[in-house]
Amino acid sequence: MTIANTPAPPYYAVIFTNLRTEVDANYGATAERMEELATQQPGYLGHESVREGLGITVSYWESLEAIRNWKKNTEHLLAQQAGRDQWYSAYKTRICRVERDYEFDESTQVL
Amino acid sequence: MTIANTPAPPYYAVIFTNLRTEVDANYGATAERMEELATQQPGYLGHESVREGLGITVSYWESLEAIRNWKKNTEHLLAQQAGRDQWYSAYKTRICRVERDYEFDESTQVL
Repeated sequence: MTIANTPAPPYYAVIFTNLRTEVDANYGATAERMEELATQQPGYLGHESVREGLGITVSYWESLEAIRNWKKNTEHLLAQQAGRDQWYSAYKTRICRVERDYEFDESTQVL
Repeated sequence: MTIANTPAPPYYAVIFTNLRTEVDANYGATAERMEELATQQPGYLGHESVREGLGITVSYWESLEAIRNWKKNTEHLLAQQAGRDQWYSAYKTRICRVERDYEFDESTQVL
């Protein structure tokens, strides 16, 4: 997993912060499938995902419409329901407009 | 680390995604001190921080002005410089306006 290579702002971010239950029930395979499916959606720009007890997944999108369409995707709706029923004890989803960004990469620094 | 208990939107988020070098040089103590210092800033609302190779720290703020003031904090400026010189091989910072959020908590569900 690396830093998502997003275009110049403005664009949109979905911050999905979550705590897992101890129920496995196909979680890994579904998470992988949702990742694959998300990257195929129109307007998908990239994502970053990390877990250390708490999980944070940030996905980046061209527009609010692209986010709405992904949220309504049939296979994704089933996964969301399974998430509430089985995999997550709690989560919070935040829909954001990215106004500005800046970055650093040591490999491109002039020494 | 748990899910930040933020107020109703709109508010602001800073998504700091980063990759570490192998240089330790007081990183842990400085990260802890920055966490302590951030929580004391006016307009600070909460934060979530996770590392699994890639690090994602999201901090939440009342206003863009609160974010600017934290960025300019003298002790924080020194840490930012040390971050570029020693601790991070790459990072990206995204300043966002949180437009909407929703959440799930199984402990508050009616069964």
